[in-house]
Amino acid sequence: MNHEQIDAAALRFEQGYSAFLRRTPLWKLPGAALGIECAEVWLKLEQFQVGGGFKARGMLNRLLANSIPASGVIVASGGNAGIATAAAAKALGVKCEVFVPTVSSPMKQAKLRELGAEVVVTGAVYAEALEACLERQKQTGALLTHAYDQPEVVAGAGTLAREIEQQGGRPDSVLVSVGGGGLIAGIAAWFGQRARVVALEPQLAPTLHAARKAGEPVDVAVSGVAADSLGAKRIGAIAWEIAQRDVGDSLLLPDAAIRDAQLWLWKQMKLAVEPAAALGLAALQTGAYRPRADEKVCLVICGANLDPATLS
Amino acid sequence: MNHEQIDAAALRFEQGYSAFLRRTPLWKLPGAALGIECAEVWLKLEQFQVGGGFKARGMLNRLLANSIPASGVIVASGGNAGIATAAAAKALGVKCEVFVPTVSSPMKQAKLRELGAEVVVTGAVYAEALEACLERQKQTGALLTHAYDQPEVVAGAGTLAREIEQQGGRPDSVLVSVGGGGLIAGIAAWFGQRARVVALEPQLAPTLHAARKAGEPVDVAVSGVAADSLGAKRIGAIAWEIAQRDVGDSLLLPDAAIRDAQLWLWKQMKLAVEPAAALGLAALQTGAYRPRADEKVCLVICGANLDPATLS
Repeated sequence: MNHEQIDAAALRFEQGYSAFLRRTPLWKLPGAALGIECAEVWLKLEQFQVGGGFKARGMLNRLLANSIPASGVIVASGGNAGIATAAAAKALGVKCEVFVPTVSSPMKQAKLRELGAEVVVTGAVYAEALEACLERQKQTGALLTHAYDQPEVVAGAGTLAREIEQQGGRPDSVLVSVGGGGLIAGIAAWFGQRARVVALEPQLAPTLHAARKAGEPVDVAVSGVAADSLGAKRIGAIAWEIAQRDVGDSLLLPDAAIRDAQLWLWKQMKLAVEPAAALGLAALQTGAYRPRADEKVCLVICGANLDPATLS
Repeated sequence: MNHEQIDAAALRFEQGYSAFLRRTPLWKLPGAALGIECAEVWLKLEQFQVGGGFKARGMLNRLLANSIPASGVIVASGGNAGIATAAAAKALGVKCEVFVPTVSSPMKQAKLRELGAEVVVTGAVYAEALEACLERQKQTGALLTHAYDQPEVVAGAGTLAREIEQQGGRPDSVLVSVGGGGLIAGIAAWFGQRARVVALEPQLAPTLHAARKAGEPVDVAVSGVAADSLGAKRIGAIAWEIAQRDVGDSLLLPDAAIRDAQLWLWKQMKLAVEPAAALGLAALQTGAYRPRADEKVCLVICGANLDPATLS
């Protein structure tokens, strides 16, 4: 993964998909505005992306970079990647099948159907839905979009980092939530050693942390408040390779801190985001990550696929 | 009201209140991203302001421009102006009393108390709460902040327009919701004839529209989905004067269109906003306001003081 692949993805997006894919706002605030002792906190408001999260970037790039058979596209996804695939397929006018585990939220399933996708609910966790999806793909020959472990998907996610730099220059650090690792892989591939890329995971869904401990990707048990979107069982092979080189810290956060940060973002900032999008603020508020006084920290607010009633 | 008063307000904000008052994002989108046939739609995301709406600008300017007695500040407000006054008083470390009518939401009352304000719930509508507030102010001598009809409050609101122009240049048109008129007065005072300023009101709370019809400010009955924040009974004297000169159209919107636009903003854009903040999109979606094909339309997303469960 390199800058050329990310540039190519950004170029594809500029060729007529400006109404589909959105250039999301980068909001720079003094650290004090969030009660954090650092110079600046940048919020990349990627929850406003089409489909409510960053995944539209990777999926649209995957679809645009390949020719799509009549059987369309197929994906297994805990939710957001499926929504992004369905939205991209709709924009391109191709068929779409989405396999989701039973743990995925009814709200996300309804959203998928609304986008014209055929939804297959199967398996207790993501890995089981994936297995069924792969079986089906063999039958139909549809283009498989993987939620995080394909080069085009990672390069698409990398356009988010490219956009941050275009909009605001280079931050000192970027705090990114990790599930399967597609987002952090794209971001780390873009910034390399030019910014400190910090991986954040729930204690109850520690794919990268566990891989570091074991020296290789391993399966982990996943649960907790963010399992719906960070519930991959294992870090992706592409993410693992990039993370070894270009991701510095790998921090774990308790569910209570994630939930507190999520509620704080709503109450104090009116940002309605899903738990997975609150890990960056949780890391700052708990002191799990302590920026320098002059540091410019960028938080990637990665998604807002939630039932808003959970913020009441 | 002129540019100098708005510049002075902006200068006050820059003197050490950057952590209190936020520079909110301006998000430029192609019209097609919202399904609107015009070149660009700009969203000024002022719902992310401290207190969840634009009113913090006016209130902070009112407090900073005057010396505050030991009895503190006092305000009558349907909700958002009260929240803004309480937040500004808290930031400056002064006492605050807020008079709200019984129609104001329990959520806003709770928020006021959380900000350290003393809340007095009295009167069925705003005008009655105001009367009680003025009586009390005579006793205590506290600095009165009016929800919309004071020069410092209007100038503070005007900084929002100044910020739009700093961030994105000059839009062709600006669509603004009107209650008492403080926001549109500040915006029209800033842009003057340099942009087309369009006033939007619910059919059920038509203060400016009724004043235009009568040739002078008149009392109107207010109800409907946006009454909680646009429920002023009469357009302010300052707003009336400015609007006669610098506000072009005055359009009315049905509640159903406002509510549809509010839900659309959440479902399609993940923007959680109160009904009053959805009038701009409602005007575009219903065709009540039809921009030219090459037009750059700016919508002021003015507040997000809502119970998120109402978006479920």
